[in-house]
Amino acid sequence: MKANLEAFRKDAIALIGEPHVLAGDDAAPYEVDFWKQYAGKAGCVLRPADTAEVAGLVRLAAKYGVAIVPQSGNTGLVNGGIPDETGHEAVLSLQRLNRIRAIDPAGDYITVEAGVILADVQKSAETADRLFPLSLGAEGSCRIGGNIATNAGGVNVLRYGMTRDLVLGLEVVLADGSILDVLKPLRKDNTGYDLKQLFIGSEGTLGIITAATLRLVAPARERVTLWLTVDTPEAAVELFRHSRGVFGDLISSFELVSSYGVEAACTHLPGVRRPVADPHPWHVLIELAWTFTSGLRERAEAVIAMLFEEERVTDGMMAENEAQRQMMWRIREGQSEATSKIGYVVRSDVTVAIVDIPKLIARCDAFTVAYGPEVTVLPFGHIGDGNLHMNFVVPREKAKELAPKLFDQLFAEVDALNGSISAEHGVGRAKRDAIVPRKPAAAMAMMGKLKSVLDPQGILNPDVVVATALKNKPVA
Amino acid sequence: MKANLEAFRKDAIALIGEPHVLAGDDAAPYEVDFWKQYAGKAGCVLRPADTAEVAGLVRLAAKYGVAIVPQSGNTGLVNGGIPDETGHEAVLSLQRLNRIRAIDPAGDYITVEAGVILADVQKSAETADRLFPLSLGAEGSCRIGGNIATNAGGVNVLRYGMTRDLVLGLEVVLADGSILDVLKPLRKDNTGYDLKQLFIGSEGTLGIITAATLRLVAPARERVTLWLTVDTPEAAVELFRHSRGVFGDLISSFELVSSYGVEAACTHLPGVRRPVADPHPWHVLIELAWTFTSGLRERAEAVIAMLFEEERVTDGMMAENEAQRQMMWRIREGQSEATSKIGYVVRSDVTVAIVDIPKLIARCDAFTVAYGPEVTVLPFGHIGDGNLHMNFVVPREKAKELAPKLFDQLFAEVDALNGSISAEHGVGRAKRDAIVPRKPAAAMAMMGKLKSVLDPQGILNPDVVVATALKNKPVA
Repeated sequence: MKANLEAFRKDAIALIGEPHVLAGDDAAPYEVDFWKQYAGKAGCVLRPADTAEVAGLVRLAAKYGVAIVPQSGNTGLVNGGIPDETGHEAVLSLQRLNRIRAIDPAGDYITVEAGVILADVQKSAETADRLFPLSLGAEGSCRIGGNIATNAGGVNVLRYGMTRDLVLGLEVVLADGSILDVLKPLRKDNTGYDLKQLFIGSEGTLGIITAATLRLVAPARERVTLWLTVDTPEAAVELFRHSRGVFGDLISSFELVSSYGVEAACTHLPGVRRPVADPHPWHVLIELAWTFTSGLRERAEAVIAMLFEEERVTDGMMAENEAQRQMMWRIREGQSEATSKIGYVVRSDVTVAIVDIPKLIARCDAFTVAYGPEVTVLPFGHIGDGNLHMNFVVPREKAKELAPKLFDQLFAEVDALNGSISAEHGVGRAKRDAIVPRKPAAAMAMMGKLKSVLDPQGILNPDVVVATALKNKPVA
Repeated sequence: MKANLEAFRKDAIALIGEPHVLAGDDAAPYEVDFWKQYAGKAGCVLRPADTAEVAGLVRLAAKYGVAIVPQSGNTGLVNGGIPDETGHEAVLSLQRLNRIRAIDPAGDYITVEAGVILADVQKSAETADRLFPLSLGAEGSCRIGGNIATNAGGVNVLRYGMTRDLVLGLEVVLADGSILDVLKPLRKDNTGYDLKQLFIGSEGTLGIITAATLRLVAPARERVTLWLTVDTPEAAVELFRHSRGVFGDLISSFELVSSYGVEAACTHLPGVRRPVADPHPWHVLIELAWTFTSGLRERAEAVIAMLFEEERVTDGMMAENEAQRQMMWRIREGQSEATSKIGYVVRSDVTVAIVDIPKLIARCDAFTVAYGPEVTVLPFGHIGDGNLHMNFVVPREKAKELAPKLFDQLFAEVDALNGSISAEHGVGRAKRDAIVPRKPAAAMAMMGKLKSVLDPQGILNPDVVVATALKNKPVA
């Protein structure tokens, strides 16, 4: 048994109580990710109740040289929130930090702790007649601390930006156990370096986010949801360009779905039917919204009439009610679930310039063909952001063999188009080594410097984002 | 004479050519800020032509231990861009880096060098039927590198955010002379720490920004500009809350002007007349815009009718043409110019929660009264952001005596309301010491760590933001 880890565990129990330091079967849910893609083994699982307890645990970790893996909703996709396989790392779950500390509709902000579920942040905002615009498939399970630590994207990025753009302030426990409180709800504050930016998207490697002040916006009072079909990805990109010109940032979502994705959803998701009767090669889901109560529908109808007249779209419909709207979104959001009934889904998250999206799709089609009918490429996602989830459906028994090859080929095409291999999912362990040759040497060097100055002992999620040598590793 | 500085100058001349290394009278314009508030003395002034020359000069500075003060448009307000009085610092002007490297209206971005004047970035965007939304009083003189290095705000923050929110990528020369190229025009890129954030708002103390990729947006095709009057700051804040609810982020500007400010503008600025005939204690300038070509005016008229009916405003008008619109903006933007004809203007830039703005104004009114009629407080600015320029007009001959007292009292009131003493102007030397007791100790410690790891020799703007001991100071 590891001596340091055992002493750490004992002190942790003294600090936060035995019921909140888990091991064995109790620890199991924290050792595998929500999607069951990755598994590890925890030395122990810590469930502190508040920021002071988090700080105390980090001080203990520093004292004993134990690595801490912060975990929030555990819905991440890049193996950044579960421990490695050594059994030496301690998972620190933020789930018990789940209070809403303040909400101020006049000031348009809410202050929440890291463990609040995203959907609960949305609901609190709604209760105060405000909108918290971050929205993504996992919103019923993911927690805001993880959304911030990974700079989550989602379906409203076009209009409201990434999570980064919604954060006004943070409370962070640093690697030495001190608490950085920059939670002030000010819109503007140019008194020195904007420290919170460093923690947003750093995946728990520079500090542990314990609370955040988030920006709220006026709620949408009229919303229009469109399902339009086009013949090619080029037509979809052109439709985006055209729509953006007309509607500006009244467009909150602009999502692409392929015919394969639509058929999979209609076949494998109960109750789902095609919004447009005939099959079409490509589908676009567009959502528009504004704060007025009426008039947007008529404007959208006039624009759609022009789209048909100018043959920019082949077919389409406007959601007449919430049920129709939900059906459209169910198809879009259910892509991974539906295709997982067909085979193993090799999931990805890449980005290129918007104009290059058709090229990327064509090249992935081309290299996929070589695998024969057993591999199908399934591109879908946020084309208004240049961000596609270029997934591959493969036979379950061949997943281990095919996944690395498909990633290599996909990433090579993304490189050729000067894109990025992680648009919104982050790096984790899954892409840690893959980013190294792809980022400028000066950027990797600076990342290393930041990591070493803010976490000199390397105790914060040391395997994630930047490979870090843990000083004073627990001895076996 | 300083030996190191002399050797540095010689090598700099060899690198970028004698005509671009200025001294004596040629250096004078770089030794005083645009507003003639601060003056220093430069060891020399360097005018490199491109990024490679900037990098070469930084390497020389590191070699000889010479401090570099990066300077862009020199319109800053906090003494962050001119050298100190020792004559030991070298000014590095970015003015010759003034190329527009790329513009892509389909991808909604522009890549520009640091020395491009803000108004020229705006014009380039316009030529491509796009909008670059950063807009502020100094836009005809300030340069984009300085806007980014100070995270400039301006009149469109409500809708488009600060400069930070408009930056997609940066090119930065680091303290060791290496070039960090993170210029990619991607909307989303979660491959590691978002390094560019560190340089935005760091005022040239962590690296020298040489180029940037900036976000463009769809242009406004219909714009409505309103001038409304109210009796109290409370009514102005309530009008903001109400308008925000109705118009959401179609509001791009929401600015407060006092009766004193309006009278000063009408008296001292040629051709300026009151938009509303009768005098009123408080005035609000609101601008709305959208991408449609018509319909906003009618919506605004309907809302204004309601505002009058509900007695939310006392009087007002809508600009009927561009000349009327310009007149409204001339009054708003001409506040400092107009009042500088009356006396010396002690300029400030503070922020509190929006709901606390009336309190801040009342408290400043109260302490100003004690000075008698010779001191007048002039609050104006971006109340939609909680950001007021709380200026004081004082007799010229008493400026030196009164300014520190007024700042102390103003800052004490801002502290009491948990605000910030710099909303958009930054820190520079002017507020460097004032932020120290106001920021959390953990924040100051982290700022110091970042400075020391990214600029270990302390050669980048060492007197600014964080007081830094220059290692290997030039010897006298």
